[in-house]
Amino acid sequence: MTKPLILTSLTGMPLVRPGDDLAALLRDGLGRAGIRLEVGDILAVTQKVVSKAEGRLVNLAEVRPSRAAGRLARESHKDPRLVEVILGESRKVLRVRPGLIIVRHRLGFVCANAGVDHSNVLGEGGEPHDWVLLLPEDPDASARRIRERLLESTGIPPGVVILDSHGRAWRMGTVGVAVGVAGMPALLDLRGRPDLFGYRLQVTEVGAADEVAAAASILIGQAAEGLPAVHVRGFPYPMREGSIRELIRPEGQDLFT
Amino acid sequence: MTKPLILTSLTGMPLVRPGDDLAALLRDGLGRAGIRLEVGDILAVTQKVVSKAEGRLVNLAEVRPSRAAGRLARESHKDPRLVEVILGESRKVLRVRPGLIIVRHRLGFVCANAGVDHSNVLGEGGEPHDWVLLLPEDPDASARRIRERLLESTGIPPGVVILDSHGRAWRMGTVGVAVGVAGMPALLDLRGRPDLFGYRLQVTEVGAADEVAAAASILIGQAAEGLPAVHVRGFPYPMREGSIRELIRPEGQDLFT
Repeated sequence: MTKPLILTSLTGMPLVRPGDDLAALLRDGLGRAGIRLEVGDILAVTQKVVSKAEGRLVNLAEVRPSRAAGRLARESHKDPRLVEVILGESRKVLRVRPGLIIVRHRLGFVCANAGVDHSNVLGEGGEPHDWVLLLPEDPDASARRIRERLLESTGIPPGVVILDSHGRAWRMGTVGVAVGVAGMPALLDLRGRPDLFGYRLQVTEVGAADEVAAAASILIGQAAEGLPAVHVRGFPYPMREGSIRELIRPEGQDLFT
Repeated sequence: MTKPLILTSLTGMPLVRPGDDLAALLRDGLGRAGIRLEVGDILAVTQKVVSKAEGRLVNLAEVRPSRAAGRLARESHKDPRLVEVILGESRKVLRVRPGLIIVRHRLGFVCANAGVDHSNVLGEGGEPHDWVLLLPEDPDASARRIRERLLESTGIPPGVVILDSHGRAWRMGTVGVAVGVAGMPALLDLRGRPDLFGYRLQVTEVGAADEVAAAASILIGQAAEGLPAVHVRGFPYPMREGSIRELIRPEGQDLFT
């Protein structure tokens, strides 16, 4: 028998606002769910609440689009101010279609709209939809801070995955993926394990943090507004330092952009 | 409170051989794990055991590579007989590098080596590694058969996901993905749900069966030989007919091949 993998969503958390102590809110959420952290546990936290707590909000009314943003806005049928924000978060624009801008994000991964979120964003007293939400400045660092703060308050440092939903090149629908990681392996190297007949397995690097993000995403999507976090128990691999950088394919190995 | 998502791997199953009654082996595995199927449960079953039970083995000693396979073998540094088998399972070759052939599989999805597996394959009395294992002929149909046979033997028809591990265009490591689906949504359409402020969510098609496959893959990868199946309880969406076809991006929408 192996241990089950158990995912529990943390419900009842208040709407997160800039400056909130997210780790404290998560600790309270664990308490409400009756969960005491154990060594090896993971918290999967949505990018949205991390970014809100970190104040990664931009008021579009204050954005002046560049000419490049204007051109891209016409091509993509998007608000030029939003496009300006997207460009500021991007290393390179890869594809543009009406309604769609796919970029290499400054953090290295490929995604739509540079992860800039235009829904569920409440500005400080402003019209909700004049505001957009950016990914955390450094999601690994955000994950490490949550981990360290929870260590201080609970005595246990959980693994932390900050997740977002990404589309895929060849498959329909988004899936949860990791954008920040702390205290757990992001990429799991199973190479060199013999298979049943003693041969070496060939392709056995596993995107473990992405699989955890996808699993958590099953629960997170069930509320219209999205749930903020999921507790994961039973991850069957040793914990260690981790980073989203493990999961980013080097541009030189990218055959599809 | 929402229900937890609980994944339990089915251990102790015998090595599957061509002609085996896989649904019966799964039913026995559930019994050993102390699990009684309930409505809404899902079984995630690896492609490998489904293909073995269906006898999707090819003896490379009996394969005569075509000239096209020979050329591709030189380019990819692969066995020309293996390349011949890969070509037979492919609609189109997309990228070739030493050690790597990426194709559009005849079933529509993009993957390496057309899902042809060269490890852990035991031929009938032959040298293990003269044999390779192909994906099921029709993985949706395989999933439906497992579902129907379990309905007969347990009274409950579980959702079934047949999963494989795929690499991604821009991220390192493989993740579990669905290659066959029955009795559960593959793609979940959450469009039209209002967000917290009454706006309509924009991108809310979720690859639910892929997320279930990724979640199950966390447990499946932990044994050197891979575990054959995972039971999933607590999937929070209504069950319905489903098909892998929902998850395949139409070629006309593909911006990256």
